[in-house]
Amino acid sequence: MTEQLTIGVDVGGTNLRFGVFRGNDCLDSIRHEVDLHAKCAAAADSESAAQLFTDLLEAGIAQLRHQHPEIVRVGVAVPGFVNAKGVLLQSPNIPQLINFDLQSAVQNACQLPVLIENDANAAGYGEFWEEKQENPELRDLLYIGLGTGVGGGWVHDDRPWRGEHGTAMEIGHLIVVPGGRRCGCGNQGCLEQYASARGIQSSYVELTGTAPDTAVIAQMACDGRPEASQTFQMAGDYLGQALASILKVADVRVIRVGGGVSAAWDCFAPALMQRLDADLIPALRGEVEVKRGNDDDLAGMRGVALLADQELSQ
Amino acid sequence: MTEQLTIGVDVGGTNLRFGVFRGNDCLDSIRHEVDLHAKCAAAADSESAAQLFTDLLEAGIAQLRHQHPEIVRVGVAVPGFVNAKGVLLQSPNIPQLINFDLQSAVQNACQLPVLIENDANAAGYGEFWEEKQENPELRDLLYIGLGTGVGGGWVHDDRPWRGEHGTAMEIGHLIVVPGGRRCGCGNQGCLEQYASARGIQSSYVELTGTAPDTAVIAQMACDGRPEASQTFQMAGDYLGQALASILKVADVRVIRVGGGVSAAWDCFAPALMQRLDADLIPALRGEVEVKRGNDDDLAGMRGVALLADQELSQ
Repeated sequence: MTEQLTIGVDVGGTNLRFGVFRGNDCLDSIRHEVDLHAKCAAAADSESAAQLFTDLLEAGIAQLRHQHPEIVRVGVAVPGFVNAKGVLLQSPNIPQLINFDLQSAVQNACQLPVLIENDANAAGYGEFWEEKQENPELRDLLYIGLGTGVGGGWVHDDRPWRGEHGTAMEIGHLIVVPGGRRCGCGNQGCLEQYASARGIQSSYVELTGTAPDTAVIAQMACDGRPEASQTFQMAGDYLGQALASILKVADVRVIRVGGGVSAAWDCFAPALMQRLDADLIPALRGEVEVKRGNDDDLAGMRGVALLADQELSQ
Repeated sequence: MTEQLTIGVDVGGTNLRFGVFRGNDCLDSIRHEVDLHAKCAAAADSESAAQLFTDLLEAGIAQLRHQHPEIVRVGVAVPGFVNAKGVLLQSPNIPQLINFDLQSAVQNACQLPVLIENDANAAGYGEFWEEKQENPELRDLLYIGLGTGVGGGWVHDDRPWRGEHGTAMEIGHLIVVPGGRRCGCGNQGCLEQYASARGIQSSYVELTGTAPDTAVIAQMACDGRPEASQTFQMAGDYLGQALASILKVADVRVIRVGGGVSAAWDCFAPALMQRLDADLIPALRGEVEVKRGNDDDLAGMRGVALLADQELSQ
């Protein structure tokens, strides 16, 4: 039998990342820098935007297939609500794409079986897979992804659970500050406005009037600069508040916090844990494990590749 | 084959209720008025409290078996955290019982197979069963029980989901008013303090200085008395706020609101719906069905009897 490889694609706001996987091992990867939001906004209509998006995906896939002819299937992790048939219902980042049958489009373009998954669900599955290596009994895991926005994924009974409308664990939109900052979703005070990279930047702007990059604020917090430390503590506090609410609904023992912002773990984790401990129902105190996930952005590609292996192999 | 019957027991704060079921049909029921909280508090130690509780359950079961010798199994719905082995981990109403193996105790007492379930999960399953008659495709349902306290249950993939510690859908302890009323759980501002029968009474006391029964406040609200109406609108508003958060974690389409307070549905439902609609993520607006459940207290007995039928029959 020839070796079978899988491509995992992670669609981000500024990058399309394509990885070649043999099971869990990432053999190769490429990155295409694309401002997807701007490109799709510039498209003449939604069909053109859909075509453009499909072409961008196909280009990366074709490039990797050229080097790895053993590739037999594709998984694509996208930011947005995805249903069980691989239809992208809505994407806050790419508002032009509504009810777009992404699975069929990519399948037709590259003539391989394709699986589509929400990006946080995919990253959560990648984290779950890793955690399961240490703990084979594990069946559930909650994932919080702190990046440009705040996303969540829930692996339940060994599978990502999308929910009945594809919006399970849309925890970036939990309201943590009633009447607080305006969110793209139309509400005010959503977690995303305080605990994402952009949210952390907004907090820092409020305190200082200047807007350095979130990574710079993190460095300043590490160096003990008070406004920067305070900014991350605030993010941690809101995360702890939200996580306590999440666990009162979804009683899961292991939680991983990943995404780019999790690189600054030490700046926000103490405040997160303190608030979580205060707000949790007493029976659960000390009974949940909140862990730092990966900030290498590999989890999404790996997760969706593993899911494609499971769903699409015979 | 002889007809097989099942007893469903619902353990409430002031009543133990025992029903005899043939499948879904309730053939007979009895009610024993017991102030369980006071009785167990008066017991010498936790073993005595456990024995007392078991005896009370056994007495009702024996009474019904005398009249219905075809009874072959028992389901018991209890307020508290229950694990998969029928161990009552903790019960806020009966704090003497910690890690009490209720399943074995009742099984030994009555020499029948026994299933133990959390009361809100059981009531949720009873409501799910009913909803499923109209909609056979249904797999998930969220249940909110408004009684002395506020409980929740989640039927997921046709089964109650307890969570990993037996505390899934402990939604009475979602914090809706940071720094608000003290709750028995040790936190402040829990939903239960505003939307349960006791919570509604507290709101009315705050507004008027008098403390009539919640049913009386409901009647006054129906009669258009402003303080009573305002009290129920406040409860509805907090319920809507909490439900929006719940649905951002557990994306489920059908929600039923039952329990004794749901008899006053018209007094609080408009405020609930208005707040839910405002706080929900836009993609879900109009896509969820919040329905009035049953206020006849039969759902818990029926749910746990149906679960016992499924789990304990060969």
